[in-house]
Amino acid sequence: MDIAELLDSFVAERTLKVDPQIKSLVLLGKIHGQNAIASLEKSSFQASTCESQPPQLNDLLTNVKLINCNDVYYWSAGMVSQDLLNAPGLKLNLIYPATEKHIRKYETQSHHMIRESPQMYTEKVLPFIETQKGDRIQWVYNILFHGKEAESIVYNDADPENGFVLLPDMKWDQKTMSSLYLCAIVRRTDLSSVRDLNGSHIEYLENIVAKIRAATCGAYDIAADELRIFVHYQPSYYHFHIHVVNIAHAGLGGGFNVGKAILIDDVIENLKMMSDYYQARTLTYQLGEMHPLWEILQE
Amino acid sequence: MDIAELLDSFVAERTLKVDPQIKSLVLLGKIHGQNAIASLEKSSFQASTCESQPPQLNDLLTNVKLINCNDVYYWSAGMVSQDLLNAPGLKLNLIYPATEKHIRKYETQSHHMIRESPQMYTEKVLPFIETQKGDRIQWVYNILFHGKEAESIVYNDADPENGFVLLPDMKWDQKTMSSLYLCAIVRRTDLSSVRDLNGSHIEYLENIVAKIRAATCGAYDIAADELRIFVHYQPSYYHFHIHVVNIAHAGLGGGFNVGKAILIDDVIENLKMMSDYYQARTLTYQLGEMHPLWEILQE
Repeated sequence: MDIAELLDSFVAERTLKVDPQIKSLVLLGKIHGQNAIASLEKSSFQASTCESQPPQLNDLLTNVKLINCNDVYYWSAGMVSQDLLNAPGLKLNLIYPATEKHIRKYETQSHHMIRESPQMYTEKVLPFIETQKGDRIQWVYNILFHGKEAESIVYNDADPENGFVLLPDMKWDQKTMSSLYLCAIVRRTDLSSVRDLNGSHIEYLENIVAKIRAATCGAYDIAADELRIFVHYQPSYYHFHIHVVNIAHAGLGGGFNVGKAILIDDVIENLKMMSDYYQARTLTYQLGEMHPLWEILQE
Repeated sequence: MDIAELLDSFVAERTLKVDPQIKSLVLLGKIHGQNAIASLEKSSFQASTCESQPPQLNDLLTNVKLINCNDVYYWSAGMVSQDLLNAPGLKLNLIYPATEKHIRKYETQSHHMIRESPQMYTEKVLPFIETQKGDRIQWVYNILFHGKEAESIVYNDADPENGFVLLPDMKWDQKTMSSLYLCAIVRRTDLSSVRDLNGSHIEYLENIVAKIRAATCGAYDIAADELRIFVHYQPSYYHFHIHVVNIAHAGLGGGFNVGKAILIDDVIENLKMMSDYYQARTLTYQLGEMHPLWEILQE
């Protein structure tokens, strides 16, 4: 079928997602009565060309309008120069007919900032965390105790008390160094999140972090001070684990953002300042409306 | 000076940065023999409009060309519909004349994690900060004391001691709600960074943050718990200011990442726990090699 004809028949019914960073938009609509998903993304400036020879402004844009200026700073809006064959302004992916599973994959959820007091933690969050153990983290135990993913393990400290397993995160393609992403999963099973840490864990954490740095720098061409090492609160599963990322990775989907990530160095320094820091502090973090905790915290 | 005339005189000499994800390009060039930086970024689809009523494809694009298809998946290229007044294809920021510091800020550079002890702060960082005052932050004083950008101010608390000015950040297009980005600049001139804050500033900060939340929610269709409010350490200029961003905004060039951003709620809670928290703590943050502090810290 002709693409122009398909797109002409597309009647948009709902916006599934808008990403202002990536400059993308996903629309759910109907073509001849059947669900279809149109996903649009603005095109980037061509990196390879730009680096070898800088383009001139009048090849890139036309018609500029000044919005404001202050001192040496001028900001304006302009029109992109485009050309369907060599420099199209956007790419468009169409899924037709689209299933319910396709639709769910593209939908977004709203996030909110939560200020979790120690009391909220004890009364609402901790009981929720208890429901997230057992079968739900069986896959973690499979890695730790049953040799799952053994072939991809970067470093294995088998000590049952102080040990951990370091392995590539699912989000990493295991090739692109600038997006290096590893995960360290501790062997002990009594720590669910940063809320469980206190002054007695300082040496334990320092030992793990030192070994993470050494093992990562040994396995990959990266320096210790080029690693962003952090935990999540709330984490996506309640068995203590540490994220290890190339500092050059600017982040995608918000996983390195303040309000979600906490530097492990900050955790250690805070514990040194006050042993019960993570029991006494009101913690502020973002939570999506699809997260099961969201409803619990609304009660 | 006329912006069109300035841009016509711009001769590109070097590509400082291309970001294929963000769809941005930063060029270094000359205008009348002086350095200038032109930074271009494709515009996003207008989230607010898209969310209230899904746009139809023929309002968004023209001329589509099929690239490939497989089963229910079709990929194509197209031309963006644009209009200088209501839907410009890109925004362009010009810095002219640009200093070496401006240039360094935009160039692609390696970053490192710094562990700044209180002693390092006193001996190396504080003397550096003192050199960053005066003319370098004249543009801040222009906003605070000389009515610059007065027309875009969202909220103005004129109290010389406790007041601040809230206005759209240069990085925001002032339209796309999901990438809402404001900046609150305090009126008092004695605070350079989070390192200057102590227990005596708790009430001062709480008052500002409450007013930021109220003013932002009053001016825009957003709830208080949908705002990510934070400071940077190191900040890009040493006059205390607070970033205010829609939580739905997943990040821009790493500016919301842990290791760079600190939630203002965390700052306040830390000060409540320990009055001299930000004088006593070793702070971990990322620093680019082009940052003038990098060399100082190597000595």
